[in-house]
Amino acid sequence: MNALFDYQVLLDEILKEHRKHAERGQLASYIPELKKADPKMAGVALMTTRGLFEAGDTAVNFTLQSISKVISLLVALEHRGVEAVFAKVGSEPTGDSFNSIVKLETSEQKPLNPMINAGAIAVCSLIPGQSVEERFGLIAGLLEKILARPIEIDESVYRSEKETGHRNRALAYFLKDINGLEGDVEEVLDLYFRQCSILVNCADLARIGMFLATKGINEAGSPIVSANAVRLASTFMVTCGMYNGSGEFAIQVGIPAKSGIAGGILGVVPGRYGVATFGPALDRKGNSVVGISMLRRLSEVLDLSIF
Amino acid sequence: MNALFDYQVLLDEILKEHRKHAERGQLASYIPELKKADPKMAGVALMTTRGLFEAGDTAVNFTLQSISKVISLLVALEHRGVEAVFAKVGSEPTGDSFNSIVKLETSEQKPLNPMINAGAIAVCSLIPGQSVEERFGLIAGLLEKILARPIEIDESVYRSEKETGHRNRALAYFLKDINGLEGDVEEVLDLYFRQCSILVNCADLARIGMFLATKGINEAGSPIVSANAVRLASTFMVTCGMYNGSGEFAIQVGIPAKSGIAGGILGVVPGRYGVATFGPALDRKGNSVVGISMLRRLSEVLDLSIF
Amino acid sequence: MNALFDYQVLLDEILKEHRKHAERGQLASYIPELKKADPKMAGVALMTTRGLFEAGDTAVNFTLQSISKVISLLVALEHRGVEAVFAKVGSEPTGDSFNSIVKLETSEQKPLNPMINAGAIAVCSLIPGQSVEERFGLIAGLLEKILARPIEIDESVYRSEKETGHRNRALAYFLKDINGLEGDVEEVLDLYFRQCSILVNCADLARIGMFLATKGINEAGSPIVSANAVRLASTFMVTCGMYNGSGEFAIQVGIPAKSGIAGGILGVVPGRYGVATFGPALDRKGNSVVGISMLRRLSEVLDLSIF
Amino acid sequence: MNALFDYQVLLDEILKEHRKHAERGQLASYIPELKKADPKMAGVALMTTRGLFEAGDTAVNFTLQSISKVISLLVALEHRGVEAVFAKVGSEPTGDSFNSIVKLETSEQKPLNPMINAGAIAVCSLIPGQSVEERFGLIAGLLEKILARPIEIDESVYRSEKETGHRNRALAYFLKDINGLEGDVEEVLDLYFRQCSILVNCADLARIGMFLATKGINEAGSPIVSANAVRLASTFMVTCGMYNGSGEFAIQVGIPAKSGIAGGILGVVPGRYGVATFGPALDRKGNSVVGISMLRRLSEVLDLSIF
Repeated sequence: MNALFDYQVLLDEILKEHRKHAERGQLASYIPELKKADPKMAGVALMTTRGLFEAGDTAVNFTLQSISKVISLLVALEHRGVEAVFAKVGSEPTGDSFNSIVKLETSEQKPLNPMINAGAIAVCSLIPGQSVEERFGLIAGLLEKILARPIEIDESVYRSEKETGHRNRALAYFLKDINGLEGDVEEVLDLYFRQCSILVNCADLARIGMFLATKGINEAGSPIVSANAVRLASTFMVTCGMYNGSGEFAIQVGIPAKSGIAGGILGVVPGRYGVATFGPALDRKGNSVVGISMLRRLSEVLDLSIF
Repeated sequence: MNALFDYQVLLDEILKEHRKHAERGQLASYIPELKKADPKMAGVALMTTRGLFEAGDTAVNFTLQSISKVISLLVALEHRGVEAVFAKVGSEPTGDSFNSIVKLETSEQKPLNPMINAGAIAVCSLIPGQSVEERFGLIAGLLEKILARPIEIDESVYRSEKETGHRNRALAYFLKDINGLEGDVEEVLDLYFRQCSILVNCADLARIGMFLATKGINEAGSPIVSANAVRLASTFMVTCGMYNGSGEFAIQVGIPAKSGIAGGILGVVPGRYGVATFGPALDRKGNSVVGISMLRRLSEVLDLSIF
Repeated sequence: MNALFDYQVLLDEILKEHRKHAERGQLASYIPELKKADPKMAGVALMTTRGLFEAGDTAVNFTLQSISKVISLLVALEHRGVEAVFAKVGSEPTGDSFNSIVKLETSEQKPLNPMINAGAIAVCSLIPGQSVEERFGLIAGLLEKILARPIEIDESVYRSEKETGHRNRALAYFLKDINGLEGDVEEVLDLYFRQCSILVNCADLARIGMFLATKGINEAGSPIVSANAVRLASTFMVTCGMYNGSGEFAIQVGIPAKSGIAGGILGVVPGRYGVATFGPALDRKGNSVVGISMLRRLSEVLDLSIF
Repeated sequence: MNALFDYQVLLDEILKEHRKHAERGQLASYIPELKKADPKMAGVALMTTRGLFEAGDTAVNFTLQSISKVISLLVALEHRGVEAVFAKVGSEPTGDSFNSIVKLETSEQKPLNPMINAGAIAVCSLIPGQSVEERFGLIAGLLEKILARPIEIDESVYRSEKETGHRNRALAYFLKDINGLEGDVEEVLDLYFRQCSILVNCADLARIGMFLATKGINEAGSPIVSANAVRLASTFMVTCGMYNGSGEFAIQVGIPAKSGIAGGILGVVPGRYGVATFGPALDRKGNSVVGISMLRRLSEVLDLSIF
């Protein structure tokens, strides 16, 4: 792949070819707000050392949802340390779905990893601060350093999740019962719902991917997060970033990635690229159908797999 | 068994012989208040057509806890009807523990039966009323008609459960998520915690047992609850009344019974007796050690088994 | 219910009224032989102190299947004692299906009860004898004493189960692995498949029911099995005799019963009747649709429920 | 890392420093033969472009055990194709232990991945041949092409597994029941037990690792297996190669690896090294304690992590 390779042509072609796959998916239904998205939208963005390339709906805002788990994990690792984090959350993939509660009861009594909802809620509880605002400031602050712009949340999604997030509430109270959640349950949930509601677009995600691909250095060249925290987050993205579709994604695409149920996928090609897709129609495991389809093709053409 | 049989001698002997078994048990630890009980207490009461016989600590007050599930089930059946109740709760025993959440996710998406916590919370949500007070009034009201005395709750146990009942809260929010709980979650939990905190003594439980043994008729001879509701409740007491120790209890004692983690056991000998025991030291399934021991002996001597 | 009550008219009416429900069920498919049955067959038999009453297809032979679990449990209890039996099998009902293997791994490492396949296979392994023939002789021998006729098996069903019984083989080897099965696995399975293939008709089952209703005394008035073994078996029939439909059956019918996937149901009305139904079309839990329907009606009319 | 780096000094130091960790582990107990190993043995080998470096007990023979799953997966992929393999086995990691049967019942009715026992048995059933000998010939043949020497099995381990492998037998019959295993169950198990009993030493494993690191090319420079099959196998080694300790291993070491309960670990550093360790004392997840300890240090010094 030399510097003259035309990324723009590639992205345009891939978008054109794969857009149709969106029809095979379903909009997320677990919060009412998400059902309002246009299921036919599709976008792909690639951040390279030569700058950003993009095609399709890359400027449309959507909420981070589960992709935020990567950001809050970085914050918790940096502010609380590796040991404190792994005291509350495991590091094993799971064959269960992202919002499963079963293993909390039958297994080792802590969430299997920080990429499932229970684990992410436990991680949120570790983020320090005197108030939800202060704690959320650490998460938003990290994103602001990466993206060099102010961070906002989608208020209606936030309220919708807060009102209807019964399953996450169940997970949080179960964690509290097994001593797996620090502090006040409702406050931790508030923080979790806020981070899920952060607004980004596809181009933003490609920039975040590049930040991870360069082991924690932002576009201005400043080290924002330690290389070790980035390595840990990237590892989790490989083993559990795509819910219980992570194994198949590792085989088909082969890069650290994290999806969110609003349709975004954040991808990292270590040392080379940040890559991202957007498409709100999901497969039954909760991953963007058109997103996976485009990433699979990109991986073939650009030989992205780390395996 | 003729009228001259000396029940008093029998109860005195059984108490004397079995009191020592209390040492094998543990006080319930899941709410702090319950740990204050004296683990050596033991009492047994038998309500017969010749009146009440009792031995030991039968006047000591304790909280109903799970025994209240029988009362609220009767209320829900009477006020909402059989069909409405079984739309929200199943009728199958389970090999899982009383506060398990696993089957809610893996099974038919409603609690397996009304005697496990999840099922009892679902039943509570069906009790009608404009406020928690009004709804609780129906439960307390039924007990007042049976016992012919005012009902009170233990305020400190109630507050303790309300503050620390994280597992029950997890079950309730999970139910809400799967459309298994009517109304406001916190209000339903409030009602559930209140009914668990109702104060009774061992003699009261024997009277409640006799009320069930006579298919819903109180001591004054008035029909309080329909025979069908009583039959349903009695059936659940056999198949699931002693948590995941119900099968063994059916074999060893063989009567409809319901235990509570404050140490009470309510027993029904259809057409013949109400029987009850008290002893706060529990086995690992949550049943009173001394209680089961005494009931087993009583069943042998008086041939109580319905099988 | 006086001696002049016309049982024959009752059975004829019930059969006529309920026969149509057979259409709602499905033939068992797990062994090819069973799919050859006529799904429209239906029969009901009632053994009383005045003799046997029957209506419909009560002379049609079918295989005992899971109903044999009651017989081999009696044999094991009589020949090995209560303690030896409960060392290998538990006494708790389960919310899982009859051939589930999950709880063997997640639970207390012995089958939850003797009425699920895993438990019945463990019980078979306890039946003494130098050979499968000798061991089977004890099971067949008990039935011969009850029915006063020679016992035969359906050879083609037996061979079919032996060849295709992969799930039961999996259960048996799992048991062997956790030290839950005595002796040679294939020999125990052979015994299990033989007892499942024993031929009976509906009238036979009613006689077996009466034998249990009289606590182990056959028609000639001889005590064949101890009253305690019969009481234990009857208890298991209530809590787990109808697979994971036992709870609902207890509520709707309320008698000790055991069903088999060839369509038979064996019922016991303690001290009063043996009752049986036949109808090979099953509901999704594996119980005869027309059988349950007829028993439910019989229970209403004759007030059979023990609760 | 330049050509003058002294690998030998590094391996000697690491062995010396980490040997003591063997004390924290336990010998595998599930087959009697494995308990005869010396728990204090330890070896490490590194295959580089400059040749093989080794320290400790690298010439001691042990059985491949689960490491053989990688070899038979390559054979199945090459001879049957990707689609046929994934028709019988999934690609998702699991939080359950290597010999768990639970997910076969509760999940999608095929083994979650080819690195757990159930999945590896399913893969074995796909290896073509008229007899077990012929099928085993394909597995042994691949190893002979990689190692350029004849392959032998440990007869006593093979017989021991065959006699006592009840859990694997349970898994295989369960697979047969759900249509997840081609052909005769006992023949497939025979093949599985044979591949587990193949004798290798630590140096062999490092050579196999290098073969995978070079995407399927042996030391003589011949392509033996397609690069795609190697990529698939390497991916599974990352997500599920270390049983339910794979996630932690990915974080701590970060390379494709596969462990066996005889104490071997096969590691792949794509494009750079084959690496292997030996040490029969295992942690509770079934991985060599001293092996993981040495690999973790090696990864730090040589910067092996692919993340």
